[in-house]
Amino acid sequence: MKKVIAIQGAEGSNHHKVAHDFYGTSIELKECMSFDVLVDSLLDGSATLAVMALENTIAGSIIPNYALIDNNNLHIIGEEYLNINHHLMCLKGQELKDIKEVWSHPMALLQCKEFFKKHPHIKLIEDVDTAEVAKRIANKNLKGIAAIAPKIAAEIFDLVVIEDEIQTIKDNSTRFVIVQTTAPNNGIDQINKASLKFQLNHKRGSLAAILNVLSDCKMSLTKIQSLPVIETPWKYSFFVDVTFDDYKEYKKAEAILKIMAEEFKILGTYKNGRK
Amino acid sequence: MKKVIAIQGAEGSNHHKVAHDFYGTSIELKECMSFDVLVDSLLDGSATLAVMALENTIAGSIIPNYALIDNNNLHIIGEEYLNINHHLMCLKGQELKDIKEVWSHPMALLQCKEFFKKHPHIKLIEDVDTAEVAKRIANKNLKGIAAIAPKIAAEIFDLVVIEDEIQTIKDNSTRFVIVQTTAPNNGIDQINKASLKFQLNHKRGSLAAILNVLSDCKMSLTKIQSLPVIETPWKYSFFVDVTFDDYKEYKKAEAILKIMAEEFKILGTYKNGRK
Repeated sequence: MKKVIAIQGAEGSNHHKVAHDFYGTSIELKECMSFDVLVDSLLDGSATLAVMALENTIAGSIIPNYALIDNNNLHIIGEEYLNINHHLMCLKGQELKDIKEVWSHPMALLQCKEFFKKHPHIKLIEDVDTAEVAKRIANKNLKGIAAIAPKIAAEIFDLVVIEDEIQTIKDNSTRFVIVQTTAPNNGIDQINKASLKFQLNHKRGSLAAILNVLSDCKMSLTKIQSLPVIETPWKYSFFVDVTFDDYKEYKKAEAILKIMAEEFKILGTYKNGRK
Repeated sequence: MKKVIAIQGAEGSNHHKVAHDFYGTSIELKECMSFDVLVDSLLDGSATLAVMALENTIAGSIIPNYALIDNNNLHIIGEEYLNINHHLMCLKGQELKDIKEVWSHPMALLQCKEFFKKHPHIKLIEDVDTAEVAKRIANKNLKGIAAIAPKIAAEIFDLVVIEDEIQTIKDNSTRFVIVQTTAPNNGIDQINKASLKFQLNHKRGSLAAILNVLSDCKMSLTKIQSLPVIETPWKYSFFVDVTFDDYKEYKKAEAILKIMAEEFKILGTYKNGRK
């Protein structure tokens, strides 16, 4: 039976690329036009897995997606880091000078603003998605229109990339996670990273005490982020990622944190996606 | 001489409210349509102070604004927390049923989506700003058009608020900071908060060691956030806010951190804006 994997955006998007990298081609995609819809499709059982962007080097953590994972008790079972590149693509046989309009998501247009300043003959039109426009150009044989999308979209829809990496900021590494509703049965030997969440009072030294435990148990911190707990002054949530070599040491840290921290929660244990 | 204060957005915006709360009415505003323009106006001397949103409870830290402060060596000299409320306003003598169109910033329209679902007779039109639309409605006497803006805009432009707090998520506390290019001469007795930045290698226990120092010096942590240093694998920047009672203890912590952490930088010392 094919796995149904929910992705944010359409076929040919970066989310699709992550699904493909993890599970190959024998998957069934469920295209979702928002992260809320993505999570709903897990909750109602219409998808078994979902790919979700969680942070990037330009904007930092995507806090609403952390909230979606946390509030719906989803489990992170894997992660991948991708460099996000925007490529300009159109029907084959055309060049940049033939392009009259670019249709794309407002965020993608914004991220490529400097490029389009140099090509004022191109009109920018806001659209619902990036890759979906590539599909529409191919299906409807639209001449003079270009899409901004990842390379995988050009391959799928048989388009030509006329300009590579047109985004203003060249380094935009995005971290994607694979989530599901049930706790996974990952092989323990594969696991060397954990995402944890806990609460602490605004008390001097409370976080240092937790980090000392993590350090004593040989955990390396790869991310830490505090968020005030809404409507509870002086209480903070912490989202922490750690990597480790020894799963037994991790279980020891987990057992101590369960006692020390309030509302301790494991968002997931999985294989580190950083090369 | 009037102080020139740069704000993001237009007169009547939340940024304007913060400028007003800090410096009263005898100020000259410089309206900036982006945070980049805001910072440029400090750098070229056309403004002496700037108000900048830095984080909010929905989206978390506004990382690009941290980068603007850090890269341009700006100094944080004050902060204020505001609950962001969107109010629907129009020319006096009109009611909700008279409104045909709402013009506003795409983000404000998005944040009030649920309200407008219940009022499908109103057409939503994207515009460049929130408060600037309120001004335009007043100046051009536009009937049937409403703006989404803070209460201060209705007062300034003599409009009537026809619906209060129409945003979907009611708790959106935003932290604003006042920044300038030169180090401030704050009275030491006013100072009980500091924003610090430093780098650490991805080494077990390095952050715990720093937090132990802060704790030993009686600093309370109110925010911590890690960001990977782009193009330097395994190196992390940390943005940390601390509050304290004793300025001498703070100076002690500062002196130790200067020795322990790499690229240690004080983004600002100022009076805690949390009540």
